[in-house]
Amino acid sequence: MGGDYAPEAIVLGSILAVKDLRPDEKIVLFGDESIINQICKREGFDPSLFEIVPTTEVIGMDDHPAKAFTQKANSSITVGFNMLKKQQIDGFASAGSTGAMMVGAAMVIGAVPGIIRPVIAANMPSNKSVPMVLLDVGLNPDAKPEVLYQYGIVGSLYAQHVFGINNPRVSLLNIGSEENKGNILTKALYPMMNNSKEFNFVGNIEGHDFFNSEKADVVVCDGFVGNVVLKEAEAFYEIVKHKGISDSFFEQFNYENHGGTPVLGINAPVIIGHGISNAKAIKNMILLTRHVIEVKLIDKIKEAFK
Amino acid sequence: MGGDYAPEAIVLGSILAVKDLRPDEKIVLFGDESIINQICKREGFDPSLFEIVPTTEVIGMDDHPAKAFTQKANSSITVGFNMLKKQQIDGFASAGSTGAMMVGAAMVIGAVPGIIRPVIAANMPSNKSVPMVLLDVGLNPDAKPEVLYQYGIVGSLYAQHVFGINNPRVSLLNIGSEENKGNILTKALYPMMNNSKEFNFVGNIEGHDFFNSEKADVVVCDGFVGNVVLKEAEAFYEIVKHKGISDSFFEQFNYENHGGTPVLGINAPVIIGHGISNAKAIKNMILLTRHVIEVKLIDKIKEAFK
Repeated sequence: MGGDYAPEAIVLGSILAVKDLRPDEKIVLFGDESIINQICKREGFDPSLFEIVPTTEVIGMDDHPAKAFTQKANSSITVGFNMLKKQQIDGFASAGSTGAMMVGAAMVIGAVPGIIRPVIAANMPSNKSVPMVLLDVGLNPDAKPEVLYQYGIVGSLYAQHVFGINNPRVSLLNIGSEENKGNILTKALYPMMNNSKEFNFVGNIEGHDFFNSEKADVVVCDGFVGNVVLKEAEAFYEIVKHKGISDSFFEQFNYENHGGTPVLGINAPVIIGHGISNAKAIKNMILLTRHVIEVKLIDKIKEAFK
Repeated sequence: MGGDYAPEAIVLGSILAVKDLRPDEKIVLFGDESIINQICKREGFDPSLFEIVPTTEVIGMDDHPAKAFTQKANSSITVGFNMLKKQQIDGFASAGSTGAMMVGAAMVIGAVPGIIRPVIAANMPSNKSVPMVLLDVGLNPDAKPEVLYQYGIVGSLYAQHVFGINNPRVSLLNIGSEENKGNILTKALYPMMNNSKEFNFVGNIEGHDFFNSEKADVVVCDGFVGNVVLKEAEAFYEIVKHKGISDSFFEQFNYENHGGTPVLGINAPVIIGHGISNAKAIKNMILLTRHVIEVKLIDKIKEAFK
């Protein structure tokens, strides 16, 4: 179990999630069995509704992700990835070390053949019932145009299958609306995306086009820019919260309402939660994982790269 | 006269600004003399309080900036830059074509010796009485580390002399707090900034550190990222405004309250206003220009690069 509020928030979030699952679906928890049982008992919840896989180690935020993943073989992340690899579980989610999660995704699960670099998407608030999909948000800060082109494909599939958006409009985040605007990366990328038959490219969007979906459903950018954009949105929400402004639109900025984000372009459903996930966020992380499994997102991506 | 609401907003803003000027200070207006006189008359304002330089051409948003700057020799921007060059005026500001303004700044005024690339800063809202200075916000989307290092110097001088911040804390916008985080650019830049004796480097900041000045007064980033960050803040303000939320903090996001931004690193005070500037924004643009002249910002920058 990982995350800043583990194990408490993880167990409580899992208890909340169980209510939304079908009888044939089961949450597998990785962690200290006695603590899990203790929290369940306190909450009046029957722990046998979970499958508990006891783990004894924890990969901390200060650990070197790659080293810890190998050395702490009995950590929840390492054990979880090994079970996912063996298809003993259908999907794996954690709010623990993002670095270790990425190591597991790359080393144990591996990229879908044809994918140059897997990517992490984020849900940006929008004026529609579904978020705007922003990718990459931090995995590949120096990616080449070919890599960002593939974000268009996987981002489009994610928006279509997970958010039910028909023929998603894919855009390029840029610093002008015209084709010839931008940096070396976006200038090289625009014609590639514009000629694409693999997704519905609608052109450039700019920073002021965020928070409404007038122009696009999917926003492609490099991992450096995406990470800054995402965290700036978090800064807005902090102000809104601090000012006591209560509004359903701004609640979209609340990480608790998001269940984390799938690693797109790998061979199995892996969802990375926010480190500061509370019980509600964990619940949503589990439900997102279930959703990604159910819509067979991985298969759709594999088919696209056949 | 330039800007989406010219000449009306320019003349009205100038009338507003006159009240804050000393008797020995004068606003020089470039444009159609009869229209200027007409608006002044309607407003009951004595146009002789302005110096009017008649111009007959306008560089439009669809014009090619460099070509138009040369070909439309009687446009307000071209005439203004020529007078600035001859020191017939002490500073020049316009809400017209940013491209043409940059051409004038580069071709007519020129960079301070030692400056690799001039830069545009923006005022980001903060929880202090002074904004956070963000630069570059769009001029140099593919700048080298040496260029961004210089932003630290000019940004620090701008924060110190224009906003009165003593020993400004200069930061690097990055995607992690640690030195080794980031993209190729920020990884190369961090040690350069960290070893600087020319400004007070305080390390990395991230997207979630915006809108408060806990960590830094000046934020250095490349022009692509800075442009997106700035415009994302505009998007946020649009929502707040749309929701009718009235709050002095959010008013910092209002472009009307900013008078535009100086081009830093050139040999004379040049201020670029927002295209959609209304009268209040124009007034503030004029007062910012006066302030940049008064504190001798250009001289301070020249001294730093001697």
